[in-house]
Amino acid sequence: MSAPQLVPVRRALLSVSDKTGLIDLGRRLAAKGIELLSTGGSAKALREAGIAVTEVSDLTGFPEIMDGRVKTLHPKVHGGLLGRRGTDDRVMAELGIAPIDLLVLNLYPFEATVAKPGCTLEQAIENIDIGGPAMLRSAAKNWNDVGVLTSPDQYENALTEIESQGGLARATRFRLAVAAFNNVSSYDGAISDYLSALELNDTQDAIAGHAAFPGQVNGRFVKLMDLRYGENPHQQAAFYRDLYPAPGTLATFRQLQGKELSFNNIADADAAWECVRSFVKPACVIVKHANPCGVAVSLDGIGKAYDLAFQTDPTSAFGGIIAFNREVDGATARAIVERQFVEVVLAPAYADDALKAFHKKGNVRVLVIPTPAGGDLRAAHPGMNSKRVGSGLLLQSADTGMISAADLKVVTRKAPTEAQIHDLIFAWKVAKFVKSNAIVYARDRQTIGIGAGQMSRVYSARIAGIKAADEKLEVRGSVMASDAFFPFRDGIDAAAAAGISAVIQPGGSMRDAEVIAAADEHDMAMVFTGMRHFRH
Amino acid sequence: MSAPQLVPVRRALLSVSDKTGLIDLGRRLAAKGIELLSTGGSAKALREAGIAVTEVSDLTGFPEIMDGRVKTLHPKVHGGLLGRRGTDDRVMAELGIAPIDLLVLNLYPFEATVAKPGCTLEQAIENIDIGGPAMLRSAAKNWNDVGVLTSPDQYENALTEIESQGGLARATRFRLAVAAFNNVSSYDGAISDYLSALELNDTQDAIAGHAAFPGQVNGRFVKLMDLRYGENPHQQAAFYRDLYPAPGTLATFRQLQGKELSFNNIADADAAWECVRSFVKPACVIVKHANPCGVAVSLDGIGKAYDLAFQTDPTSAFGGIIAFNREVDGATARAIVERQFVEVVLAPAYADDALKAFHKKGNVRVLVIPTPAGGDLRAAHPGMNSKRVGSGLLLQSADTGMISAADLKVVTRKAPTEAQIHDLIFAWKVAKFVKSNAIVYARDRQTIGIGAGQMSRVYSARIAGIKAADEKLEVRGSVMASDAFFPFRDGIDAAAAAGISAVIQPGGSMRDAEVIAAADEHDMAMVFTGMRHFRH
Repeated sequence: MSAPQLVPVRRALLSVSDKTGLIDLGRRLAAKGIELLSTGGSAKALREAGIAVTEVSDLTGFPEIMDGRVKTLHPKVHGGLLGRRGTDDRVMAELGIAPIDLLVLNLYPFEATVAKPGCTLEQAIENIDIGGPAMLRSAAKNWNDVGVLTSPDQYENALTEIESQGGLARATRFRLAVAAFNNVSSYDGAISDYLSALELNDTQDAIAGHAAFPGQVNGRFVKLMDLRYGENPHQQAAFYRDLYPAPGTLATFRQLQGKELSFNNIADADAAWECVRSFVKPACVIVKHANPCGVAVSLDGIGKAYDLAFQTDPTSAFGGIIAFNREVDGATARAIVERQFVEVVLAPAYADDALKAFHKKGNVRVLVIPTPAGGDLRAAHPGMNSKRVGSGLLLQSADTGMISAADLKVVTRKAPTEAQIHDLIFAWKVAKFVKSNAIVYARDRQTIGIGAGQMSRVYSARIAGIKAADEKLEVRGSVMASDAFFPFRDGIDAAAAAGISAVIQPGGSMRDAEVIAAADEHDMAMVFTGMRHFRH
Repeated sequence: MSAPQLVPVRRALLSVSDKTGLIDLGRRLAAKGIELLSTGGSAKALREAGIAVTEVSDLTGFPEIMDGRVKTLHPKVHGGLLGRRGTDDRVMAELGIAPIDLLVLNLYPFEATVAKPGCTLEQAIENIDIGGPAMLRSAAKNWNDVGVLTSPDQYENALTEIESQGGLARATRFRLAVAAFNNVSSYDGAISDYLSALELNDTQDAIAGHAAFPGQVNGRFVKLMDLRYGENPHQQAAFYRDLYPAPGTLATFRQLQGKELSFNNIADADAAWECVRSFVKPACVIVKHANPCGVAVSLDGIGKAYDLAFQTDPTSAFGGIIAFNREVDGATARAIVERQFVEVVLAPAYADDALKAFHKKGNVRVLVIPTPAGGDLRAAHPGMNSKRVGSGLLLQSADTGMISAADLKVVTRKAPTEAQIHDLIFAWKVAKFVKSNAIVYARDRQTIGIGAGQMSRVYSARIAGIKAADEKLEVRGSVMASDAFFPFRDGIDAAAAAGISAVIQPGGSMRDAEVIAAADEHDMAMVFTGMRHFRH
């Protein structure tokens, strides 16, 4: 059996939570002689606009009961949606089931219901729509013969088809059916997420609590683009975003120019963006192979910040990802394209001059991440973070922990100077985004050496020192940040030998006393944050 | 309003796809004087067992039509499930709606339908159940007054409650309702995954194709355990598994003893397990901070493999995760607990002696991963792999690429010896699991130095050399694996200076000629794999 290329629309059922565009839709459908069925608020709104509608209860001959719990769950509605034209015509005629050719229905997002402050279990449960999803599923299942609209942004195209050819084309109906099933899946996923996190109290009146992690989690991801390949060319890949992405995060990007993004571009761009948006002052972060390879903050603006970040490790910066937390000006853009090969540039905005400069290197991917309402890039909250482990999933709250000068506990005889405190916090913010074990050397808010991804901490410290020496950057007077505590004094001894003058680290080792004694011996200042930032 | 503590069960509707336990259930419910409603195959099976049932069509007075598409979508069914006892009693009496206190319904898994070879779109669509999910949602919504069973493994507990107290307790009904909503969400998620990946042909008869990545992906993860905290103590976390986990992967583990698993334990255990199960011969992998810090294969068994793996980097092995691809014997277990602090041990099996040895160190987490049917650990396929990027998700097929000796392309004048080929493939397998950029030095199937996580390749090579020297392991005669091509000859020059005699790498650099010339100059053998293994 082959689905008909065109299904004429003669009867439509309209029942929407979001009334956007409803009147125009109703009017234009009615103008084509289409009979309109409706219920509740939609019927009222249409009638008030002077559009004739039949109540579903008149169709079914069965009253709407139980405060609306049961109104459309009736064979005359579902038979009308599910009946196979051609196959079921006789039984439909016998039982007085009129075919419904178009369903217009959207659901009030369950996430929004339960997000309301003080929403009780009873309110949440009462908001679970039974009839709506059932009709969506019936109409979508019978896409051969029925069209289904689940969102106002689908109305115009559908109306155009109906007005020009009297019905919906096969490809349109299929696309709409898929959207309806996606919609129902998202709706049911939200209910499952909410209820399976809920801890019931002894009486119904109160919810005892919400578990941080539901018994079942239902990811709902919308594809943004297929990718040419994955982390490696023999892997297939695609890029998705949350159904409701957090404003100010990478997934809200717009690409202004350049080649298509690769899997590794996106992963590195996220690391660069998350790091750069953690700074208040003008900052530049250069990422290579998932690690920052140069970071700087400059009160002289992002152009200077870029120069300094580049100096940390020019070799690694080649082919890197560069992120800024300020609008990119023309001079900075010109400096980048003249100086180095760059894969991706990210920023909240670009001056026209900057776009012109990038335009000369057409392959460079230039991404803008719109600043969230309120204007603070740091306010973006990416929510849950996950790590895939085979057929398992580790789910955790994002690492949004951050410290300020007031949180620092001086543990050495010597206290850091104010300039050192600025550098210590700068280095600490960078260390948070370096793969563990992470050691960052910094001076004057510029990274001097970055030791990443080692299985023992002392090697990270050695690498930071080696890299600084290789680039002929002066370590003397620099500070050191460590993402986790030093298990032994060797890391402090090595840092002192290299010229490090102050250290920031979480503290908490069994051998803290020994580590502090080492710092005192070397006449270094050391502060504890009480917070670890592993990032593997 | 408060949900009643106990809801007496007087009428039950049974409609199951999985008939397991149905007859016993029906008999025991009937024995309690409960009226049974049923449809189709369930009604037939019950009647054949001599259990009296009322057909739903007798209840509704409406025939089952459209080949079963419409049978339960009726106000007498949904009113019976949704009616609020106490509130809706009068309207129910007026309209002849009999309360249904228990729904027993399970859905045929949609994943199984579409996994059948040659399943057409028409068959898939026909298998989408409309009435079932609608009833599940009605009954679960009305959990105050109705119980809902979605799986045979729930029957016994429910029967016990009904037989002992005449009905289901409030906490039971809530738990069952949550399970029902989880079930519906999984069902709708599977439909959305399938349909939104589907590419429609011009005629209905054929599916043009399935996109590798659906337009919407609906993760369905079941919580295995809450975790004390996430990657860091200020992050909350939980461990989930796929609704249908791949046999032989970490998520199928059983913990035999030890402290509770942490977030980092699980992440590292996965890395260790995926690496060790890639070897055919007895192997041991020690992981620390997400990277292998020692790997060895030994024909003398896993005890020897452990000794060799430990030698690579004893400092990092302290507090590591140790994985084996063979049953752990008593001697090996004793060697581990006597020699080092270990967080987690993983293996497909343990001898009794080994368990006794571990038992003396009660904190050690001992995990067994059951071997999949067929007995080949390498056959386990974890499916899709994902990487969270803020509010985005990078989804990719797992890196299952693997090479054998036949795939190697010798590019130097000198060809590797047979012993070198064994070592090259060994080193290559290890490099696949080391964070990029990855360099692995190996000799006699033992890692000699591992350079991980660097932003430029030459530093990874330097680190591998430094680590080998620090542990006084002889590099002369070793081989080197690189997870990606060498962009310049400097990595080869450094390796030659350290004593490396043969190299394995993907090839494909613009400067391959220069890199090959360097190897020839140093009289090294070099092979290309044509396959890259980035792992960030």
